Amino acid sequence: MSMDYMSRSLEKHEQWCGKVEVVSRVAIESAEDLSLAYTPGVASPCLEIAKNPDLSYVYTRRSNMIAVVTDGSAVLGLGDIGAVAAMPVMEGKCALFKAFADVDAFPLCIASNDVDEIVNTVRLLSGSFGGINLEDISAPRCFEIERRLKQVCDIPIFHDDQHGTAVVVLAAMINAARFTKREMNGLRVVINGAGAAGTAVAALLRQSGVLDITMCDREGIVGGSGSLSDAVNGADVLIGLSAANCVTFDMVKSMNRDAIVFPLANPVPEIMPDLAKSAGAAIVGTGRSDFPNQINNVLAFPGIFRGALDVRARDINDEMKVAAAYAIADYIPESELRADCIIPSVLDRGVSEAVASAVKNFSKST
Amino acid sequence: MSMDYMSRSLEKHEQWCGKVEVVSRVAIESAEDLSLAYTPGVASPCLEIAKNPDLSYVYTRRSNMIAVVTDGSAVLGLGDIGAVAAMPVMEGKCALFKAFADVDAFPLCIASNDVDEIVNTVRLLSGSFGGINLEDISAPRCFEIERRLKQVCDIPIFHDDQHGTAVVVLAAMINAARFTKREMNGLRVVINGAGAAGTAVAALLRQSGVLDITMCDREGIVGGSGSLSDAVNGADVLIGLSAANCVTFDMVKSMNRDAIVFPLANPVPEIMPDLAKSAGAAIVGTGRSDFPNQINNVLAFPGIFRGALDVRARDINDEMKVAAAYAIADYIPESELRADCIIPSVLDRGVSEAVASAVKNFSKST
Repeated sequence: MSMDYMSRSLEKHEQWCGKVEVVSRVAIESAEDLSLAYTPGVASPCLEIAKNPDLSYVYTRRSNMIAVVTDGSAVLGLGDIGAVAAMPVMEGKCALFKAFADVDAFPLCIASNDVDEIVNTVRLLSGSFGGINLEDISAPRCFEIERRLKQVCDIPIFHDDQHGTAVVVLAAMINAARFTKREMNGLRVVINGAGAAGTAVAALLRQSGVLDITMCDREGIVGGSGSLSDAVNGADVLIGLSAANCVTFDMVKSMNRDAIVFPLANPVPEIMPDLAKSAGAAIVGTGRSDFPNQINNVLAFPGIFRGALDVRARDINDEMKVAAAYAIADYIPESELRADCIIPSVLDRGVSEAVASAVKNFSKST
Repeated sequence: MSMDYMSRSLEKHEQWCGKVEVVSRVAIESAEDLSLAYTPGVASPCLEIAKNPDLSYVYTRRSNMIAVVTDGSAVLGLGDIGAVAAMPVMEGKCALFKAFADVDAFPLCIASNDVDEIVNTVRLLSGSFGGINLEDISAPRCFEIERRLKQVCDIPIFHDDQHGTAVVVLAAMINAARFTKREMNGLRVVINGAGAAGTAVAALLRQSGVLDITMCDREGIVGGSGSLSDAVNGADVLIGLSAANCVTFDMVKSMNRDAIVFPLANPVPEIMPDLAKSAGAAIVGTGRSDFPNQINNVLAFPGIFRGALDVRARDINDEMKVAAAYAIADYIPESELRADCIIPSVLDRGVSEAVASAVKNFSKST
């Protein structure tokens, strides 16, 4: 986050010369190798797939290959920096897919903010992939793009900023409620930020039994009267998916006892963890790696796609997302929960396996 | 080519589970790794590229990444089998790019035969790539697609079925002429097949000083009267880019002495090499690996893109193609030329280096 950090990342990126690479899985040393992998032998898998397109999952990389798709309109906290400038984030995401779940992910950065063009581009290419991870597309276009792609594609479409975030927030809430001995359906929850992430978090919490959710945006309570301060007063949980420093000491102080506060804005949270704790918060989780309880999508998306690809799911449905959240939460035995350890480390490779396994079961049964 | 061969290729493809793979170039083991390769550090290369898009060649994989693009409309000799069924060929092509020239190539199979849709899809994604290899797109759409992409993209656009074929045919002709002690501008050349490949071969031969070229198609001499037999009578060179067994013993017999015959149809050539030789052909080259003189694009495309990427060429121009052909031809010292060795082995890794080096020089000087 310091300027030094930033310049080191720049230096590293220059050395890496790209964070993903396309390699060959076949040795091409002899004329026979060439004849089997390329002409004339390659004609046979082509003809088989032409007869039955499902065999694309057998004879090509499709069964393990997803696309990470963006238009560069809502990249990190940087805003609409465009398709070309978004690539370092997309390559990073693809590297994480491979590192954490052995999913091949290729970045497709589309130089258009037009919904029709984005949908059409992805649709025309979707036959090469086993799934589509939408990334960093601004609201409200992201909702329409996802909805329309689900209609026209027969592979999973997953907007990670929405659903990946919702899964990890739900996981953290499950364990925070367990640790503070409360039930999900008794929690009064306030979400500050009604964009893609906030909307999806609210939907998944409802799906998981949370009954009392108040959404706020810059204007205050959405569809109601009153400010964020009014909403937070007496609440059990405050989830920030908004902007730096917009939550005050007094707001947290006005919350119910054993308050759960997740200020997830990056890189600067809605309230710094120390300040929130001094105001009485029992559990604080942020998006940052330099504080305890890092609530980061990397806990969710690799395992979710691993599971979906393994069973060739046509969709990533709500049941699969809830199952993923419980898999993340359950990864820490209840006896080992602590206020500063309600969510597993993002570096723990076992999480994505647990998530994949849970997601697979729910895909099968639905 | 036998059924056994075909079933072995099918078995191999199932084992390979895809011929390309997307891997990570960065280790992600620690929180610091994550912070440099992903958030928050990744913001710095994004911001630099947003300021100066040229830096996409420094901070992302773009400098070594091309797309292999098809609509699946003219795949091998199989015809219009569609985008999904074309994938085994495209993956094979990408594997060859990596194996022969360390070029990262990713297959994009577009499920549309509409020129506007294909052009638009490639245009919208072109900012992620350092070049575009068009592949197996049927004529005449391939000409318009290439022409329009060259207008709207600032990276090299290269339709390999046209230009790769032209380069290797020219290379073979250069050495065939050397071996038989003739000059290019004195050769009477007949090309049978007026599709994408035939048209491009004719253009590049003209560019290289061949003055007398007669094109034929199924109807006979294009833009003239007479049949293929009439055209071939007394010709020095016959290049087949057409269909199996359409050239007869008598046709070759009617050619000039020291006849050069390249029946390149795959897998079954226009005339079998033994028959052509018995009819008096001095030099025969086919597309097949099981006869001498395999005239195969793999001698050209990896090195051409390697060279173009290395100097960040904006185009692959005619001078670069001619230079590539001479680099392939010159790879065999004139003293080592033989009737059954006028072109290097497709397995010789040195060829693409020589081609890359030649292409680079011509890109610089033009």
